[in-house]
Amino acid sequence: MSNSPRIRIGMVGGGVGAGIATAHRAAMHLDDRYLLVAGAFSRDAERNRQSAEQLHVASERVYSDYAEMARAEAAREDGIEVVTIVTPNASHYAISKAFLEQGIHVICDKPMTDDLAQALELQQLAASTGQIFALTHNYSAYAMVRKAAEMVSSGALGELRIVQGEHASGWAAGDVEEQPDNKQAAWRIDPEQAGENSMVLDLGTHIHHLMRYVTGREVESLSATLNTVVPGRRVFDDGEISLRLSGNLRGGIWISMAATGQEHGLRLRIFGSKASLEWRHEEPNRLVIQHLDGRKEIIVQGQQGLDGEAARLTRIGLGHPEGFLEGFANLYGDIADAIEDFRHTHRVQREGQRFPSTDDGVAGLRFVSAVRKSHDQQSAWTEVQ
Amino acid sequence: MSNSPRIRIGMVGGGVGAGIATAHRAAMHLDDRYLLVAGAFSRDAERNRQSAEQLHVASERVYSDYAEMARAEAAREDGIEVVTIVTPNASHYAISKAFLEQGIHVICDKPMTDDLAQALELQQLAASTGQIFALTHNYSAYAMVRKAAEMVSSGALGELRIVQGEHASGWAAGDVEEQPDNKQAAWRIDPEQAGENSMVLDLGTHIHHLMRYVTGREVESLSATLNTVVPGRRVFDDGEISLRLSGNLRGGIWISMAATGQEHGLRLRIFGSKASLEWRHEEPNRLVIQHLDGRKEIIVQGQQGLDGEAARLTRIGLGHPEGFLEGFANLYGDIADAIEDFRHTHRVQREGQRFPSTDDGVAGLRFVSAVRKSHDQQSAWTEVQ
Amino acid sequence: MSNSPRIRIGMVGGGVGAGIATAHRAAMHLDDRYLLVAGAFSRDAERNRQSAEQLHVASERVYSDYAEMARAEAAREDGIEVVTIVTPNASHYAISKAFLEQGIHVICDKPMTDDLAQALELQQLAASTGQIFALTHNYSAYAMVRKAAEMVSSGALGELRIVQGEHASGWAAGDVEEQPDNKQAAWRIDPEQAGENSMVLDLGTHIHHLMRYVTGREVESLSATLNTVVPGRRVFDDGEISLRLSGNLRGGIWISMAATGQEHGLRLRIFGSKASLEWRHEEPNRLVIQHLDGRKEIIVQGQQGLDGEAARLTRIGLGHPEGFLEGFANLYGDIADAIEDFRHTHRVQREGQRFPSTDDGVAGLRFVSAVRKSHDQQSAWTEVQ
Amino acid sequence: MSNSPRIRIGMVGGGVGAGIATAHRAAMHLDDRYLLVAGAFSRDAERNRQSAEQLHVASERVYSDYAEMARAEAAREDGIEVVTIVTPNASHYAISKAFLEQGIHVICDKPMTDDLAQALELQQLAASTGQIFALTHNYSAYAMVRKAAEMVSSGALGELRIVQGEHASGWAAGDVEEQPDNKQAAWRIDPEQAGENSMVLDLGTHIHHLMRYVTGREVESLSATLNTVVPGRRVFDDGEISLRLSGNLRGGIWISMAATGQEHGLRLRIFGSKASLEWRHEEPNRLVIQHLDGRKEIIVQGQQGLDGEAARLTRIGLGHPEGFLEGFANLYGDIADAIEDFRHTHRVQREGQRFPSTDDGVAGLRFVSAVRKSHDQQSAWTEVQ
Repeated sequence: MSNSPRIRIGMVGGGVGAGIATAHRAAMHLDDRYLLVAGAFSRDAERNRQSAEQLHVASERVYSDYAEMARAEAAREDGIEVVTIVTPNASHYAISKAFLEQGIHVICDKPMTDDLAQALELQQLAASTGQIFALTHNYSAYAMVRKAAEMVSSGALGELRIVQGEHASGWAAGDVEEQPDNKQAAWRIDPEQAGENSMVLDLGTHIHHLMRYVTGREVESLSATLNTVVPGRRVFDDGEISLRLSGNLRGGIWISMAATGQEHGLRLRIFGSKASLEWRHEEPNRLVIQHLDGRKEIIVQGQQGLDGEAARLTRIGLGHPEGFLEGFANLYGDIADAIEDFRHTHRVQREGQRFPSTDDGVAGLRFVSAVRKSHDQQSAWTEVQ
Repeated sequence: MSNSPRIRIGMVGGGVGAGIATAHRAAMHLDDRYLLVAGAFSRDAERNRQSAEQLHVASERVYSDYAEMARAEAAREDGIEVVTIVTPNASHYAISKAFLEQGIHVICDKPMTDDLAQALELQQLAASTGQIFALTHNYSAYAMVRKAAEMVSSGALGELRIVQGEHASGWAAGDVEEQPDNKQAAWRIDPEQAGENSMVLDLGTHIHHLMRYVTGREVESLSATLNTVVPGRRVFDDGEISLRLSGNLRGGIWISMAATGQEHGLRLRIFGSKASLEWRHEEPNRLVIQHLDGRKEIIVQGQQGLDGEAARLTRIGLGHPEGFLEGFANLYGDIADAIEDFRHTHRVQREGQRFPSTDDGVAGLRFVSAVRKSHDQQSAWTEVQ
Repeated sequence: MSNSPRIRIGMVGGGVGAGIATAHRAAMHLDDRYLLVAGAFSRDAERNRQSAEQLHVASERVYSDYAEMARAEAAREDGIEVVTIVTPNASHYAISKAFLEQGIHVICDKPMTDDLAQALELQQLAASTGQIFALTHNYSAYAMVRKAAEMVSSGALGELRIVQGEHASGWAAGDVEEQPDNKQAAWRIDPEQAGENSMVLDLGTHIHHLMRYVTGREVESLSATLNTVVPGRRVFDDGEISLRLSGNLRGGIWISMAATGQEHGLRLRIFGSKASLEWRHEEPNRLVIQHLDGRKEIIVQGQQGLDGEAARLTRIGLGHPEGFLEGFANLYGDIADAIEDFRHTHRVQREGQRFPSTDDGVAGLRFVSAVRKSHDQQSAWTEVQ
Repeated sequence: MSNSPRIRIGMVGGGVGAGIATAHRAAMHLDDRYLLVAGAFSRDAERNRQSAEQLHVASERVYSDYAEMARAEAAREDGIEVVTIVTPNASHYAISKAFLEQGIHVICDKPMTDDLAQALELQQLAASTGQIFALTHNYSAYAMVRKAAEMVSSGALGELRIVQGEHASGWAAGDVEEQPDNKQAAWRIDPEQAGENSMVLDLGTHIHHLMRYVTGREVESLSATLNTVVPGRRVFDDGEISLRLSGNLRGGIWISMAATGQEHGLRLRIFGSKASLEWRHEEPNRLVIQHLDGRKEIIVQGQQGLDGEAARLTRIGLGHPEGFLEGFANLYGDIADAIEDFRHTHRVQREGQRFPSTDDGVAGLRFVSAVRKSHDQQSAWTEVQ
């Protein structure tokens, strides 16, 4: 808990009915450290107005255009300190640029962009403006994912040998193309809108970030095969990637949006010389450890004796399960700490920064680019660069 | 989502470091329907002041005394519409009375009181004042608990035959008496402060309410044995209760705070003529159904095709797990609906009320009273009345 | 492995289609230490003959009557050394008597008898004849149940505080009375044939033995309620029992044959001052340990580093699961060791005997008797004597 | 059950202390359809003699040499009808040949050979001699694996889209090279004895067969990477393989013997247009089905209403778990049926044959060969031929 005044935040995108914006707003509110005071929620004027009303945003701070919003808010005494961008991927670059250049911090939904060149520009821009840029790869903010990373870095698993990641969801295993009111589906599986690689951008960058975060290693090269397993689909909906990570770590990733019946399907397994570790999004409060001698251990969030991030990020404990929104709120909490620090220091403290940054965004886009290149060359081993 | 202005809420108790108040506040904030604007957080003036500051409550609306708070807030144009009471059980009656009589709705932490006679008075009082009284038996607000109740009432399990409940926590399996900084423990296991029956009040009323809620039946009679299994302890820390519920349903409850290594340990199993159902707090997003022919089914929150309360109460879905705070926030959301309705109608709509009321509080205290009576009579079968 | 010749064994009961006899025969054969050479499989002559043929038993050693079988086999140079009795409970006493008096060891399916007085006589008789009497409470021969008992006796759980047992099966949750070809059901739920207490004899004695075996404690007193939850049924099909065990251990047992959808439903949980332990028949190769600090551990049969009985009783290891028949065969193996020892010493070595004996059979009948007495006295606490 | 006399069987290899031979013998004995009457258990004369004694094999039928055994047993009136070969892979071809040419059926431990050319010769030889050749890929004989295959072929999963297999064991994650008494390890990780590909032969052929069996598809091409993750090891201990199966099915296999802490690690997941299916060796009695709408179902061996192979291969049912040896015994049972049929017809009935044959052995070796070839060509996509 902190004595600082709440952080004034705005939002671009996220009008009524938008999916991920709900998670962003719950994450802001849960610990009561943000006030949502401005927005450009929709290009549809009526939807924009209605959204603002429901979100308790004053009408004079509802904008039809993000650029206008950036200018107007920068000019206000009580203007927003930070903006959350929850628009389609292709617009992330331009919107981020508009706010950063006005001296407003940016929280950007992932992936950072849909294009590596733009990601590199944005990386430069954020550095030069000296503002905070946070990318919401939220899974690395789960208490038990933090615990996993601490176990790896402390050597509890010994030398790392194998890492296996999955982000194999069932959300598009059915004929989502045929569901006219499924706007998300329409967007994500339309190659003209989201690109043929949309799954790699959407799901691939999540498991890629999670794997990098927990292992502390970078993907150096890969061999990838992308598939379209649902007949008639016009984007890739499944893929397998073999990896080489730094420090001679061998890895594998399975991404899919056609894994029939699966829930979100995010899962990470790391095998070391002493023990292995597994985290699954379906049971985010648990880590399963398997020791070399076959003994299994389950570490539960909130259990006595946990310290470090797992302790810091547990709200209730004693077996009261936390979920997706709490994990997302952990990320918003870490960003809030940085913004409050910036209020005093007027500079970004990169050392020990606890949330994903433009570097992570660029790494994600390099990964997407290498996956596509390898696929196009019959799964040839390809450097990530 | 609603277009109504946020509900103005106050809090009695819940100063810095208090346990359950954190859950209440997160539950208020998660869906952004409440504004915490007043409080009497602690009888310690400094702690009261600090809490208010951290909670963004203006200093002129921080009160040293709940009675003064009730009067002062009732007199303000922008006074609180509802108060949340998170003080020790013995004070619930007096504080609730003070606010109800000033025309302020009450959200009261469970149990309603620590005494049946007071519970009955409070029941009368709430009825006569015409205000909303909500009791925070939060577990019945989990989406999948609602689903369980719907399955029972729709006949999906057939005729009910057996119900088994557990609230067997491990929180006091160790020597919590010896932990000088464990204030909660100190309070709960001190017979002078919390009473010898504290466990039945604390845990027993939760599983009792959950069982009544899901089965739709009342406990009619019981045979109980209370135990003290940790040597030297001065309160009961374990108990077993055989039950007869209305409609000829046979039941059993195990309550414990000494079940070594258990998490929160809340679990409900219902066996009917067609199928059985299990809900466990450790995996609150799942219902396990076992059919008469041995086939098992797992229903997951957020899966396609769920309707009714399970659909209404799911924020993100698609396998994004919700936790304890989301369940608690569901309860605050249902109360918010009732308060917004009251704004227009100026009366409490009891039909279809979706949160526990004074009737539930009274039922809980009758249960506690019968358990103690049976225990004192060598587990003799005892009417609940 | 042993160099001794195979043990010559006979069987009374167990004709074609009989249920539990299949398990006894698989248990004999799995480790190839027994030869089934004689039998009185059925009182139906044709069924007796057919069974013998299928079981590779020579026609001259197929008997129409168990008494004749006992005499004739005792008279043969190559006569059976031991007989397995798999007939209805009411006949166990007379058949056991016939073989013991002819100097033939007895393996008797549980319960030992359906009557306490007969159990006491059989206890005397076995002692006076000096033959081996083994009672097939097979669950205590699972490797991980042995491990559980070793953990308790070594103090790994600390002081025992609470023990909870369940044998809650779903086999008779449906209208088994109406299934004309379900002979087992017909027998077990006919009060004239199996007695009103059949469930306590069948299931109750199993969980009672398992609890005594693992805890090393005796049930001293109990409060029981028996129920008939399936409408129209003429025997008890459900019951709850509160227990006091020696050494001030508090316990509970739930027995049911009407727990809709459950599999065999055998489960034991023991809570001590340091840790708790759970074993479930559905996953017999695993023990779940929960430590006081909330850390969970899963011990898997066959994992490296296990010693004692868990190591001795693991056939393959390395994660190759063993099942019900392997557990049953462990029991037959322990009995084989005792028979081979008897070949040399001509006496029963009771010290360290690894299988249930007449003492266990008597304890089981005392339990059944006390359960019924308590039930008949409105769940009054009743001494087990 | 059958009325036929027991089948006379011999064994080559499998002396005292040998691992997998224990499983073969338990599988023979469990259902009492085989008599082990001859053997060449070890090239060490003393060990050979001792093994025979412990296995109750008459001394005149213990042979120092398999070729002599084949000739002598073929000459006896009561000679063996079938031999089980449990020697190192490199000797399978020669030994099989010796017995087949003497008109003795062969049960051969997998893989069929360690060389594709020999596998092809053996395929010819078995066909020309007209004897039964059974390869013990035992996992496809688990009741629930049979059920899985039936579900796939009946269309319960819809059109197959993705299949993911794992055989990722932890047995060699530690420094097994340094354990002087671990003979199995010594053999399997010595490239001179077992070959650099030993893991692909050992584990890879198992998951390859399981995948082919359940899907009913053939692997047509693959891209493989083999790794050595334990420093200093001289064979591959980990590998990832992307697959194309017939009928446009995309698949993946992970094989490892260095997956720290894992048990046997065999797991199969199949995703179809209607539902997915998962089978794990750690819980072999369960199939987990995930429907397109997210509903999960668990099918348990022995539950009421199962038919087909799942019913036929369940010995006890009602939730009594079966394990590895029961699955292996199912395979021996299917072979016994074929041998009994051969007694009457003197010909091998290939149609509907329920156990793996030389065709499966050849397919396995083609797979091993393609994996190595792809690995040697930087994971290039390679035809399996």
